Amino acid sequence: MKLKKIKNIEFAQGGVCAAKGFKAGGIQCGLAHSGASVTKKKNDIALILADNICTAAAVYTTNKVKGAPIQVTKEHIVNGLARAVIVNSVNANTCNADGIDKARKMCSLAANQLGISENDVIVASTGVIGQPLPIEPIENGMKSLCESLSYDGNSAALEAIMTTDTQPKEIAVKFKIGDKLCTMGGMLKGSGMIHPNMATTLTFITTDICISAELLQRALSDVVKITLNRVSVDGDTSTNDMVCVLASGLAQNTKISHEDADFDAFRDALYTVMLNLARMMARDGEGATKLIECLCAGADTEKTAEIVAKSVITSNLFKAAMFGEDANWGRILCAVGYAQADFDIAKVDVNIGSEKGIIAVCRHGAGVDFSEETAKDILSQDEIQIYINLNDGNASATAWGCDLTYDYVKINGDYRS
Amino acid sequence: MKLKKIKNIEFAQGGVCAAKGFKAGGIQCGLAHSGASVTKKKNDIALILADNICTAAAVYTTNKVKGAPIQVTKEHIVNGLARAVIVNSVNANTCNADGIDKARKMCSLAANQLGISENDVIVASTGVIGQPLPIEPIENGMKSLCESLSYDGNSAALEAIMTTDTQPKEIAVKFKIGDKLCTMGGMLKGSGMIHPNMATTLTFITTDICISAELLQRALSDVVKITLNRVSVDGDTSTNDMVCVLASGLAQNTKISHEDADFDAFRDALYTVMLNLARMMARDGEGATKLIECLCAGADTEKTAEIVAKSVITSNLFKAAMFGEDANWGRILCAVGYAQADFDIAKVDVNIGSEKGIIAVCRHGAGVDFSEETAKDILSQDEIQIYINLNDGNASATAWGCDLTYDYVKINGDYRS
Repeated sequence: MKLKKIKNIEFAQGGVCAAKGFKAGGIQCGLAHSGASVTKKKNDIALILADNICTAAAVYTTNKVKGAPIQVTKEHIVNGLARAVIVNSVNANTCNADGIDKARKMCSLAANQLGISENDVIVASTGVIGQPLPIEPIENGMKSLCESLSYDGNSAALEAIMTTDTQPKEIAVKFKIGDKLCTMGGMLKGSGMIHPNMATTLTFITTDICISAELLQRALSDVVKITLNRVSVDGDTSTNDMVCVLASGLAQNTKISHEDADFDAFRDALYTVMLNLARMMARDGEGATKLIECLCAGADTEKTAEIVAKSVITSNLFKAAMFGEDANWGRILCAVGYAQADFDIAKVDVNIGSEKGIIAVCRHGAGVDFSEETAKDILSQDEIQIYINLNDGNASATAWGCDLTYDYVKINGDYRS
Repeated sequence: MKLKKIKNIEFAQGGVCAAKGFKAGGIQCGLAHSGASVTKKKNDIALILADNICTAAAVYTTNKVKGAPIQVTKEHIVNGLARAVIVNSVNANTCNADGIDKARKMCSLAANQLGISENDVIVASTGVIGQPLPIEPIENGMKSLCESLSYDGNSAALEAIMTTDTQPKEIAVKFKIGDKLCTMGGMLKGSGMIHPNMATTLTFITTDICISAELLQRALSDVVKITLNRVSVDGDTSTNDMVCVLASGLAQNTKISHEDADFDAFRDALYTVMLNLARMMARDGEGATKLIECLCAGADTEKTAEIVAKSVITSNLFKAAMFGEDANWGRILCAVGYAQADFDIAKVDVNIGSEKGIIAVCRHGAGVDFSEETAKDILSQDEIQIYINLNDGNASATAWGCDLTYDYVKINGDYRS
């Protein structure tokens, strides 16, 4: 898919290894349970290691059920510092009596092998919940995992965090802070599943910028709200969602410690990374054949715009219509109508578009004539835009989703066969 | 499916014609548009007529997009009185510039033919939205429609309101108010679709009880909250949902005008009618193979219990797992965890059950060992119960839904083929 470019930011290669001072690696340590129909050998544990201690920030799932790794990561990151990230797939280490101990053990195993403090290790897991995490394969594999670290190990690490993702999702960008060229890279997994099917989004971002922990957290929290938090594949909020950023400072820019122009430039770069990862995730939603982007404009507040855009992209009826390439604008208006926000439905306009063009389908809350043939042509593309104008103000928001397909049901209901 | 019985209420036959003083009828007037692949001749317009003026009450969709018929019905019912109901399928008469005029016209055509006031007519429509309602077929068919009225016309009327419903849904009950035998019957359509696929729930209930309009409305509003409002097939709130009750008074009970024992008896009967219609609707959800009933107990308030139960039955991941007959309790706990209510996830217990038995799958927020074979056997049934105990109080609530299947996607995405 085409990457979305913001201002002067340039795209680069290397994912989480693009920024100065970050190694990554990944191996298959053998977490797959014996009964699993693993046909492909795939890495199942990843490590990211910074050359020096980094400023760190993270945002977590709001689900009350929180994976044990999230609780341990929260403790370790409380001082705003971290140096390594360890992540496994296959088992989410969630809802187990010994989950916290196992998550701590992952950190200490990595820390001992790397010769760093276990308090500087971020830990994450994705996969089956409610089954004890076998720690032996991780223990046995730790030496090899650490040996796999390299300055171009991003792909091996990325492979290790994927579950039913059909595409690897990573990105890197270059941008200027003052006269210093800075780099940021990220990788994401989602919305993949693994037996027995727990959707989880994990995102890891590395950058060589120099920034205070407070402002790193502020930028991350801001950008998550308008990127990852505006993606829905199926409306289910996972127990293990986590996004974290490590900033090594090796770009040697003047430390960002106020909301100044440098902060804005950094924030734009972070937005570019997370926007594109969010779009990749929506496009690779389970069973998806199309990326659906819904832009709601003309709202009184950004919150209203967000609520409306999210209401549309989470509507099963609408999502199924997109799979059927059916310009069923009534379902769009229906989802706009039940959005929990205050606006006048009689003023709402709706357009649908793609690379093939844009057509008006609804004006002032009522249908307008359009060519079904043109509409079908527009909807035949694999990136669809829905434009909603509430004609009630100047705020806007975009949300991303995907169509609802047979394969979604197959992946999530029929996985045993 | 088995009907749920409350107290001394007896089931009866006759649907909306069961109570004293109600005729019903239905015909095919020819609303289907020329392009439609209508393979089956099916009634498309229904009429219910009471022998005398009735007390009336209604509850409507909360969607901002409201079908024109709803707006007209609201005006007509404002005095708490009605005598007839006219309903068409095929076209929802929603989001059209002339919708209100057409809805009024439907009322006046029926009123003129029947010799009653158009203000005493309730009007409803279901079907495609955003396409002008052709009024000619209704005008031309009105004489035949009125001639079709009879004291056993409930099936003809019910056929006329069905869209992609695979089963007709009606019920009738007998109950005592003082020494008078009273009767109540109802019919429901949903969650059916019609080109281009607008899900709508319409419910019409008739009774011969004598009750004040105020208490009729109170009972209806109360019971809707714990029955129809706790059903979700796909989380989409339609633009045309309506439930209305007509009470003829012919049972000659002492008029109910206070919240006394008679009111409670009436409310129990109404609950029985609407509970069973709600269960029928969930079971016949689009593409559904199973009815899913989620009982949340041990909550601090009924609201918390309702939020949790609804969160589970609306989870696509959970619904797909039910289709796959997979005892994936992690998805249940995940949906409990993201429910927007306040409770301690570490105290939550989950059981799953059906006619084949009940097993514990989660205690205190963590998994417990269970036989996958037994679980599979339980989930092979077509009525599944999910029991959640928050262990945090004495309030409970039940919500109803269905599984998410290939056919849901087919019906809603692929209907042209």
